[in-house]
Amino acid sequence: MIARDVRGTARACRLVDDRSGDYVAMMKDLFPHTGRAWTIGVTGNPGAGKSTLTDRLIALFRKRGQRVAVVAIDPTSPFSGGAILGDRIRMQAHFSDPEVFIRSLATRGALGGLSRSAVDVIRVLDAWGADVILVETVGVGQDELEITRTADTTLVVMAPGLGDDVQAIKAGLLECADVFAVNKADREGADATVRDLELMIALGGEITSAGAHSRGHAAGTLDLAKQQVRHGEGRWVPPVMRTVSTRNEGLEGLVAKLEEHRTWLTSTEAGGARRFERLRESMRTQLRESLIESALGSIGGELEEMAHAVARRETDPYTAAEQMVAHFKGR
Amino acid sequence: MIARDVRGTARACRLVDDRSGDYVAMMKDLFPHTGRAWTIGVTGNPGAGKSTLTDRLIALFRKRGQRVAVVAIDPTSPFSGGAILGDRIRMQAHFSDPEVFIRSLATRGALGGLSRSAVDVIRVLDAWGADVILVETVGVGQDELEITRTADTTLVVMAPGLGDDVQAIKAGLLECADVFAVNKADREGADATVRDLELMIALGGEITSAGAHSRGHAAGTLDLAKQQVRHGEGRWVPPVMRTVSTRNEGLEGLVAKLEEHRTWLTSTEAGGARRFERLRESMRTQLRESLIESALGSIGGELEEMAHAVARRETDPYTAAEQMVAHFKGR
Repeated sequence: MIARDVRGTARACRLVDDRSGDYVAMMKDLFPHTGRAWTIGVTGNPGAGKSTLTDRLIALFRKRGQRVAVVAIDPTSPFSGGAILGDRIRMQAHFSDPEVFIRSLATRGALGGLSRSAVDVIRVLDAWGADVILVETVGVGQDELEITRTADTTLVVMAPGLGDDVQAIKAGLLECADVFAVNKADREGADATVRDLELMIALGGEITSAGAHSRGHAAGTLDLAKQQVRHGEGRWVPPVMRTVSTRNEGLEGLVAKLEEHRTWLTSTEAGGARRFERLRESMRTQLRESLIESALGSIGGELEEMAHAVARRETDPYTAAEQMVAHFKGR
Repeated sequence: MIARDVRGTARACRLVDDRSGDYVAMMKDLFPHTGRAWTIGVTGNPGAGKSTLTDRLIALFRKRGQRVAVVAIDPTSPFSGGAILGDRIRMQAHFSDPEVFIRSLATRGALGGLSRSAVDVIRVLDAWGADVILVETVGVGQDELEITRTADTTLVVMAPGLGDDVQAIKAGLLECADVFAVNKADREGADATVRDLELMIALGGEITSAGAHSRGHAAGTLDLAKQQVRHGEGRWVPPVMRTVSTRNEGLEGLVAKLEEHRTWLTSTEAGGARRFERLRESMRTQLRESLIESALGSIGGELEEMAHAVARRETDPYTAAEQMVAHFKGR
């Protein structure tokens, strides 16, 4: 993989999917070869045109001679195979380019762990030598937000006329957005969407804090943290860009803004703090997943017994969880 | 709360949000008062009309004299406050009904835990005396799927003309769906959506196994498990119902199917097995969250140090996670 072999890299990705064999040993080995790639999260509701935009971004980065990897987590993305035939044919150009590596991640089973798999696959592609890694997710859902938070730069794609979009952004995406693209900008309503976004960004913390208040404490705390970052030295204010990706309009300008954000990340103190925050975030996710894997390995049978005891109403799930944590620590 | 006091119940929900005070003690106390409510997950992509349908279901259950609770996790739902004014006004009737309790859950912060909060809030509303608890989520995202899997009955709402829907369903929702509603059934394309769904259900595991194969191993295993359940004794085949919720059409029939599923759950062996599976699922989630909370409590400072060490490239995140798990067990 480090020799930039595509088949070896695909095999490494499968090891991550399965978490089998000596997958952890492999990840340890390849970690020193990571840290070079620039990860761009591409997120937004279905219908905003993320996939076409991603397709255009691949082409632009390829034109500059860069290696591009795509990790598709959006189940409706043609990159994930969840598309009509037309889309697949359109993507074929990239599928046959040896300098483009496309990988889709399934929604995970009972154990969760999608975000951990995403982080691992991104590291594999980083070690493969990707200059840019585009991570496409649907902009809703806890796990998707977690993945978005591990990207270096997050691009939120919106489209006029989807109505709910700006509202949905308020509910969680705003704090992750580094650049907004109002795609399908030739459609009616594009001006209003741009205006709404710019207003929301200008008012910053205040709007979302008020919203968060009615939505519970945790979100409020996050918004507060974000406000502190925003109002600190060298803060980054997300620009709002217009694109029509089907007609290749506005894409050069969008890439320029994405690159500006990258420069901010690597050359300012606030950018450095943000990169560290992202790393800590990914390590917290990893710790959580390692804990549950380790616990299921040593007390998996007890979970089954405890579930039966709760079903018989002999105990409650809270006491059961406490006991299992205590037993896990005692092993 | 057990005295059915609305303000006390709201306070209990806030305790769950904050996970502060003696929230765990409260949950232990109220657990014996739970187990009576019927939880219906209402899920599907934005634009399918989940919120209006939920609104109509509330009205129907109220007509039968039942207490109804709504837990809104969909950030675009008017129940979550993320709606245009018109929607809010439309909902007012239910907001002022003392036998209807509406609670929205924010997307959680860094720690994840949305699904655990959902399970806890559902238990609080169960103890409050809800006969029916409607849990509205967006049908994408790992956490949303996890929540869906804790519901007794899962209603997947689709609409013709959204295009991606049937594809998105394949990617994860099919295994959770107990009843499908093709809403906005007066629109063009409704017949095709119904036909696609019925075909997919009839072909069952085969289609999704093939799909899952290209999407990775974990999903394939899940589909296999589902297939085994489906082909067992007394299996439940999800019916596909047509509704036009804005015109109140097809809703009585939909409720009848939901109730049929409830009867299946409580009166057949396969239904009992399914209920147990759901309980075990919620306990696994709880164990995971309890583990990370307990770990951050005892080794939270170490996480910070380890992140710095990884940032300086003195260690890798995998070795760091192993060390942290070992240290946690040693405390």
